[in-house]
Amino acid sequence: MTTFEFDADTAVVPVDAGAGRWRATITPRFNVGPNPNGGYILATMLRPLFETIGKPDPLTVSAHFLRPTTVGEADIDVDVFRTGRRHAHAEVRLVQETERVRAIAAFGDLAAAEGRTLVRGAPPELPPPDECIVRRPVIDIGQPAIMDRFETRFAPSTPWILGEPSIDTAVTGWIRFADGRPADVASLPLFADAFPPAVFALGRAGWVPTIELTVHVRARPAPGWLRARFETRFLVDGYLEEDGELWDEDGRLVAESRQLAMLLQP
Amino acid sequence: MTTFEFDADTAVVPVDAGAGRWRATITPRFNVGPNPNGGYILATMLRPLFETIGKPDPLTVSAHFLRPTTVGEADIDVDVFRTGRRHAHAEVRLVQETERVRAIAAFGDLAAAEGRTLVRGAPPELPPPDECIVRRPVIDIGQPAIMDRFETRFAPSTPWILGEPSIDTAVTGWIRFADGRPADVASLPLFADAFPPAVFALGRAGWVPTIELTVHVRARPAPGWLRARFETRFLVDGYLEEDGELWDEDGRLVAESRQLAMLLQP
Repeated sequence: MTTFEFDADTAVVPVDAGAGRWRATITPRFNVGPNPNGGYILATMLRPLFETIGKPDPLTVSAHFLRPTTVGEADIDVDVFRTGRRHAHAEVRLVQETERVRAIAAFGDLAAAEGRTLVRGAPPELPPPDECIVRRPVIDIGQPAIMDRFETRFAPSTPWILGEPSIDTAVTGWIRFADGRPADVASLPLFADAFPPAVFALGRAGWVPTIELTVHVRARPAPGWLRARFETRFLVDGYLEEDGELWDEDGRLVAESRQLAMLLQP
Repeated sequence: MTTFEFDADTAVVPVDAGAGRWRATITPRFNVGPNPNGGYILATMLRPLFETIGKPDPLTVSAHFLRPTTVGEADIDVDVFRTGRRHAHAEVRLVQETERVRAIAAFGDLAAAEGRTLVRGAPPELPPPDECIVRRPVIDIGQPAIMDRFETRFAPSTPWILGEPSIDTAVTGWIRFADGRPADVASLPLFADAFPPAVFALGRAGWVPTIELTVHVRARPAPGWLRARFETRFLVDGYLEEDGELWDEDGRLVAESRQLAMLLQP
């Protein structure tokens, strides 16, 4: 039986079930420079919930990144503080000596959802993956390890990926796991943070620390490529939001994301 | 000295400073039907932080609404769990017999922010307030008390405000406090939830319970009207997101919001 990278790298073991304490080993395989990617950390923090919260889908997850995380062991403290008929809410803290990330999540069951549907948005228009840009972004902080975890194809309309600065701080493209693992609701919070930041269009590629990241999982993805669109519309005095959409091969929106981050001067 | 409605209705008193416990009296003046508006509750929960957290601006605030809140006394439990140089993070719980709302917030100082600025969005185009629609929305659950707290002028391009259903689930307009209180960073989380839900365009106006609401405060507003734009792009099996933008009279984006909510069948 194959163990995919994502499942191995986000694995958690209970160390004190009564106290809600789990342990993870943060690997360097999702690093951006010396630090693990925030989406990877968040996906790892959610792993215990899939086993304990009693609902299958992370409908909305918000994480506050307090301090950089590091490669190595981490305690994950879980508190399911509200269980209702439709939704269950939990808080999760990632501790490496001190608390580094705090998240709150609401889980539900998308398969049991009933109600009206009206879709006014559409997936980004993209050429087929083999007509998109394979070349990796030119950035100042070395080749991030995280990029080896995915196959990523950037739209030809995003020339900054090839190193030509632009004020069009947006990026669209295809993405899937490099080892063939299908996307699912557990990995969507990682996919929501797996593209190079759209603000890199400006050509000042460096560390863009996330302050807060919220991901809404809207549907369970079909197997295959995801279409992604990320955009920063408001960069003000170094603070920026980045909005993301992920769509599956059936043309369904599977996740929306928004983060508040900072563009540190290089 | 005048006490404005917002300041009176969100007032908090410390009851156990060492434990971080405050008390508020939730008034009926921001009700929608029998329950207080979520933005009002969130603004009330943030009030203790302005006195204790040591930073002036709520950069990002996420609230999970666990159970309906009610008019009357509420305990507000505050834990400032991380104080850094730039940002301080806190968790706040609103308790009425049991926990009803949990929020996490990151505060900072927008006046001290330094870095690049690039604004790619623009405020909604609106006729002057006196050429907009004053008439209140036609909704099924009675005239919400919250509407008396604001002066609201809806764009003529949103005919559903007058009772004509539309699949254009968006609304733009002007808003300010009815009693002349200027908007500020403390009241922006309320303004971000103060318009009728954009999904009311569909003509099935009822209760739209918020599961999670996140507000980013991006600038301190100038005095005067706010321009607002709210939109729901994805209503799927009854779950919807609503994205909002608030702009001040100087044409600056002052807040972005996104909530995950449900459209309950009437």
